[in-house]
Amino acid sequence: MNGNRFGRLFQVTTYGESHGDAMGVTVSGCPAGLELDEDDVQAELDRRKPGQSMITTSRGEPDAVAINSGTQDGYTTGTPIGMVIENKDARSGKYEPYVTAPRPSHGDFTYSAKFGTRNWGGGGRSSARETVNWVAAGAVAKKVLEAEGVEVKAHVNQIGDVEAPPVTFEDMVEHAEENEVRCAHPETAEKMLEKIERYQEEGDSIGGSIYFETRGVPRGLGAPRFDSFPARLGQAMMAIPATTGFEFGLGREAREWTGKDRNEDWEFDEEGDPTPVGNKHGGIQGGITTGQPIFGEVTWHAPTSIPKAQTTVDWETGEEKDIQVVGRHDPVLPPRAVPVVEAMLYLTIVDFMLLGGRVNPDRMDGKAGEYDTDYHPRSPGNE
Amino acid sequence: MNGNRFGRLFQVTTYGESHGDAMGVTVSGCPAGLELDEDDVQAELDRRKPGQSMITTSRGEPDAVAINSGTQDGYTTGTPIGMVIENKDARSGKYEPYVTAPRPSHGDFTYSAKFGTRNWGGGGRSSARETVNWVAAGAVAKKVLEAEGVEVKAHVNQIGDVEAPPVTFEDMVEHAEENEVRCAHPETAEKMLEKIERYQEEGDSIGGSIYFETRGVPRGLGAPRFDSFPARLGQAMMAIPATTGFEFGLGREAREWTGKDRNEDWEFDEEGDPTPVGNKHGGIQGGITTGQPIFGEVTWHAPTSIPKAQTTVDWETGEEKDIQVVGRHDPVLPPRAVPVVEAMLYLTIVDFMLLGGRVNPDRMDGKAGEYDTDYHPRSPGNE
Amino acid sequence: MNGNRFGRLFQVTTYGESHGDAMGVTVSGCPAGLELDEDDVQAELDRRKPGQSMITTSRGEPDAVAINSGTQDGYTTGTPIGMVIENKDARSGKYEPYVTAPRPSHGDFTYSAKFGTRNWGGGGRSSARETVNWVAAGAVAKKVLEAEGVEVKAHVNQIGDVEAPPVTFEDMVEHAEENEVRCAHPETAEKMLEKIERYQEEGDSIGGSIYFETRGVPRGLGAPRFDSFPARLGQAMMAIPATTGFEFGLGREAREWTGKDRNEDWEFDEEGDPTPVGNKHGGIQGGITTGQPIFGEVTWHAPTSIPKAQTTVDWETGEEKDIQVVGRHDPVLPPRAVPVVEAMLYLTIVDFMLLGGRVNPDRMDGKAGEYDTDYHPRSPGNE
Amino acid sequence: MNGNRFGRLFQVTTYGESHGDAMGVTVSGCPAGLELDEDDVQAELDRRKPGQSMITTSRGEPDAVAINSGTQDGYTTGTPIGMVIENKDARSGKYEPYVTAPRPSHGDFTYSAKFGTRNWGGGGRSSARETVNWVAAGAVAKKVLEAEGVEVKAHVNQIGDVEAPPVTFEDMVEHAEENEVRCAHPETAEKMLEKIERYQEEGDSIGGSIYFETRGVPRGLGAPRFDSFPARLGQAMMAIPATTGFEFGLGREAREWTGKDRNEDWEFDEEGDPTPVGNKHGGIQGGITTGQPIFGEVTWHAPTSIPKAQTTVDWETGEEKDIQVVGRHDPVLPPRAVPVVEAMLYLTIVDFMLLGGRVNPDRMDGKAGEYDTDYHPRSPGNE
Repeated sequence: MNGNRFGRLFQVTTYGESHGDAMGVTVSGCPAGLELDEDDVQAELDRRKPGQSMITTSRGEPDAVAINSGTQDGYTTGTPIGMVIENKDARSGKYEPYVTAPRPSHGDFTYSAKFGTRNWGGGGRSSARETVNWVAAGAVAKKVLEAEGVEVKAHVNQIGDVEAPPVTFEDMVEHAEENEVRCAHPETAEKMLEKIERYQEEGDSIGGSIYFETRGVPRGLGAPRFDSFPARLGQAMMAIPATTGFEFGLGREAREWTGKDRNEDWEFDEEGDPTPVGNKHGGIQGGITTGQPIFGEVTWHAPTSIPKAQTTVDWETGEEKDIQVVGRHDPVLPPRAVPVVEAMLYLTIVDFMLLGGRVNPDRMDGKAGEYDTDYHPRSPGNE
Repeated sequence: MNGNRFGRLFQVTTYGESHGDAMGVTVSGCPAGLELDEDDVQAELDRRKPGQSMITTSRGEPDAVAINSGTQDGYTTGTPIGMVIENKDARSGKYEPYVTAPRPSHGDFTYSAKFGTRNWGGGGRSSARETVNWVAAGAVAKKVLEAEGVEVKAHVNQIGDVEAPPVTFEDMVEHAEENEVRCAHPETAEKMLEKIERYQEEGDSIGGSIYFETRGVPRGLGAPRFDSFPARLGQAMMAIPATTGFEFGLGREAREWTGKDRNEDWEFDEEGDPTPVGNKHGGIQGGITTGQPIFGEVTWHAPTSIPKAQTTVDWETGEEKDIQVVGRHDPVLPPRAVPVVEAMLYLTIVDFMLLGGRVNPDRMDGKAGEYDTDYHPRSPGNE
Repeated sequence: MNGNRFGRLFQVTTYGESHGDAMGVTVSGCPAGLELDEDDVQAELDRRKPGQSMITTSRGEPDAVAINSGTQDGYTTGTPIGMVIENKDARSGKYEPYVTAPRPSHGDFTYSAKFGTRNWGGGGRSSARETVNWVAAGAVAKKVLEAEGVEVKAHVNQIGDVEAPPVTFEDMVEHAEENEVRCAHPETAEKMLEKIERYQEEGDSIGGSIYFETRGVPRGLGAPRFDSFPARLGQAMMAIPATTGFEFGLGREAREWTGKDRNEDWEFDEEGDPTPVGNKHGGIQGGITTGQPIFGEVTWHAPTSIPKAQTTVDWETGEEKDIQVVGRHDPVLPPRAVPVVEAMLYLTIVDFMLLGGRVNPDRMDGKAGEYDTDYHPRSPGNE
Repeated sequence: MNGNRFGRLFQVTTYGESHGDAMGVTVSGCPAGLELDEDDVQAELDRRKPGQSMITTSRGEPDAVAINSGTQDGYTTGTPIGMVIENKDARSGKYEPYVTAPRPSHGDFTYSAKFGTRNWGGGGRSSARETVNWVAAGAVAKKVLEAEGVEVKAHVNQIGDVEAPPVTFEDMVEHAEENEVRCAHPETAEKMLEKIERYQEEGDSIGGSIYFETRGVPRGLGAPRFDSFPARLGQAMMAIPATTGFEFGLGREAREWTGKDRNEDWEFDEEGDPTPVGNKHGGIQGGITTGQPIFGEVTWHAPTSIPKAQTTVDWETGEEKDIQVVGRHDPVLPPRAVPVVEAMLYLTIVDFMLLGGRVNPDRMDGKAGEYDTDYHPRSPGNE
């Protein structure tokens, strides 16, 4: 009945249902002295927000975050950060016919089977609305990692059969946010948009995928055997609603490569450190980061909420019934999932960095506003 | 930097500072189908509330709880319960002189030493105000346990050198809430009150203790070796602010008892089950509950906030300075700690019961209001 | 520095290095009363054992398990099961040249970077030898799940570009163990074997994949949001050494499916329960099991230990050097990984079943040999 | 069914029964580069060993530890340390009459009630023999902390009504190991010994207590609110078999002190740091260490195994029966518990130090024997 926590030292705890009063997330374990205010979090929430374009749900949520604790005069204090995002535009009425008749391929049946009840408005706790909490927590992690020189970027690399050619990290930084699809290859983005609109018109939806890449993740992260870097990142990505596959490095294609072709010799880098020639290993060897960029892909199935006529059964009446899911829904998931993938990467990385003692408190600003309460901040022997 | 979580399956996560915007607590792992509304929680919060009497702080907090998620039409859904209690009467001004000059025997210095900063208003995160979250979570646990026939009761059994004679469980139920001291022995309560008032007049404060006892805790709870029942209960009690000792059964006096005098023979009870003759073991043998009442004591030191003149040093200026803690403070802690002790008992017990599979979902009401989404609720093979 | 634990209630803890004295695994949380002896565990270890055929390493390990605790007269007692498997055929000598010169694409560099040292014999802690512990723990989980009617089966479905056609669960049960490749499609198995032998002769190695499927997993398992079933299974699979991808249901292909084509209507099954028409969802909806078979694929890259000449650098001498990994190695990983995948599935499933209160202690035999110490075993109110 | 793990980053996992094949303990999370061999562990085990004197059980256990993994050429590698201690002198025969007739005040009944079965030889998993694992793990923690300048010492301060006067830390270091009672006050030790021998002759046993104190624990340890230093230390101490009370600082007596008398002003110490005048707070303020010595007391009840005639009931036959516990038993627990208390202190402190990032890897020796595999050991940016 649990499952509402993520992270071992950077601990995220969430609550909230799609049509409940509010979503909430507590971040415990954030280092003290980090400059942080609601605008930092809001900027990320706005990227995930519904109603951004014609290809997202029209639900009108401001997604305004309130930070209830854990900061003082704009700096974190090391104590838990409590955030609340109120739900403002919930309209549960149209879900009434399906209280005891599960929508096709949703979590309605499994939630009812698991708990013997469920919050049915808008999908309740099973709704992807939950990811607003993840993005809020990820925004805090991002701020910590920025101070450490870690960057993360993702873009939509495939929608249906429209696949983008490989792009650089710089392309992603520059172009991913320029279009509604969040594809860093502008021409492909246009084709994707056309495709999505066609499915939308047909009352259908379509699957897709996201490619992600990192910069600046230090070598040595990951705790084999069970908490290797790919194991924990895999958990993070497969927890995102509607994902069906996670790959890193050569991913699924690795099955067709020989050892000789995949293996990478070692050479010295400019600083005289051993470094692999190439990065087919995707930044991870032996379950631990090498310091090279980490990259991979995550796959989403098509949204299950579609206005086409489908069939369900009502366990109360024992009868078949037609169903047309009429709510306000996205015809495709990856465009709004880009900030979610980035958030889960930030959360996974910051947690490993804290576990490895690699977050340098001195890189936090350390001020606490007008009233500075510093006592021998992090002097040797004191930290 | 963590430490804001309690419980393994009944998972409590908290945030909040004494003078922050709000206190917050998330309860994850509460069984579905439990009847629960804000009044259930409020009733317990009101017992802990400041300003109840002349011997508590005059801070005017309504301590009104809002449940943001996890219930539907008055029943829990099995998903996390998010609660928020706004802080309404915070006045930080009088703490300004002590931002860099620690109050005697408070956590000011240690928080600053640990985090390199601290929220100083009203003691920030170190304030006993945090226990409002614990009582809110405990109120939920209490509801679960009521359905299982588990009862918990505590009363103040000593203030300074005024000690109450032994009282029965029924005495505690009947009399503990009748007086401001929460002592179940009325004559002793009066003496305690006199004593407290005298110290209060002198600008001083005084220590004390609480006796607790349970009814209906099933045998078999506790997970030795490291998570024995007394180990986890000890953690719970020693986490309460200002506690300095935890005992159960014969407690500290056990050191003077011989094995022959303390050992208890076995006999059969009315149902033909082996049962110990007597309960000097305090309901726990081998770290596991026997089914007998669990009882013990917890000690509090005197409140450290006193209006008497004391001396501190300012680490900013390097100078000594006088300090008189002028805030609004309790002259004694146990009276308001009674609901906190009970909450921690409920939280500890419910967690062990869930771990042992002993919470019977069928004893939860299982309804979900007007729209009942039940699917084969907890039928065998389905649960 | 941790990462040696798996499972929340069925808790597995491991130790051991490839060339250390022994491998060890502790299983805490196994229900009492399960019939279990060393033969049960040995049977699974023998499937994973080196030296089974020409396409596995020739290292001669008997992999004999000793159960040091947790059972009595052939039945579990509910207390931790400690198992030790001695290493008998470690020959570290040939690893000496590479102590400070990392083997290409192994974990040598990352382990040294993480810990500032490493056990280098045979890959030390980074070796896939660790999975002997997983298979031992999985054998215990399998016994628990057999009593619950849960079955798991895996086979090798691709080696290089040789891909097996879809097979049934029954095919896997019948044919997977018949050939050295553990492919349930005999003709494909032969082609795979040829391919592997060719790479082996060339001093090369090759990647591959495993398909898995379940029977009898009850609906309602999985703890969204962060501990959804695919999230925890993904973690389990991505923790297996050399995996680069995890998929379930339509997996990576889901990106090309429309909602209409993928969505599944509901119908009533023979018992009158709602059941999805089809299983493109792979047994999981909303992160929770539906009761349908769970299936998916895991990809392995080619073994990195190959006898071909490669180049490395020595961080001690600062010089480049040739490297030819001459140890005893597998030319392909999936054949010996089949029992590992099954073990991780068993461990993941049993953990969720315990969390959901779905392991019925009455299905355990409950006897404890000659001296039966049963006390009111698991009577209502007693459990 | 769990409870066999201790520590969050310095993770201890144990198994074993009193009369099983072996006891075992895995330590995961020990820093790499620590000089450690079996002698270090053996030295501590020998202090706890049975058969040391006339006032301990005569069971003849060599308690020889084997380290199976996690070290190389005498240094830790950062990977888990697996230790096994074989049981050599188990004689279960005399426990046969009590398989279904619980010994008075032991864990026989509660274990059977919890698990529906139990390992009955010598008390099985409920035996204090388990603490051999704790002392082994504590020996590793002690080595880590020695490098950090942390010291811990305990002695027996009361047996029955014989109480030792206060002793200094230096007294404990010098005198505690000089006598069989492990009391640092020689004259009191003699009186205690007399008392114990008298009870032993009478076929009885007696309770007692241990006083502990630390040196060099840095300020800032402890993670309020739920994982405050006293909360976690309380858990550790109350997990020790047969303990009934835990106190720190003024302990139980704090209830009689006024705030004015207990509060401590602040002054500057020699280095110009604020420091409390006095240490009535026992080294902990606000749940966090102040840097002052931590001290407290733990109480044990009398051993329950006594040769005097007692009465029990047999749940198999339904009859009363006489019981005389004839095994080999200690007449008093604290003397052999001194190394256990020290071990639990070390384990608690090292865990908090790792959580606070306060274990300096550079103070570990960092060598790894003949083959030094160091790679840029813990250089800035690499750790």
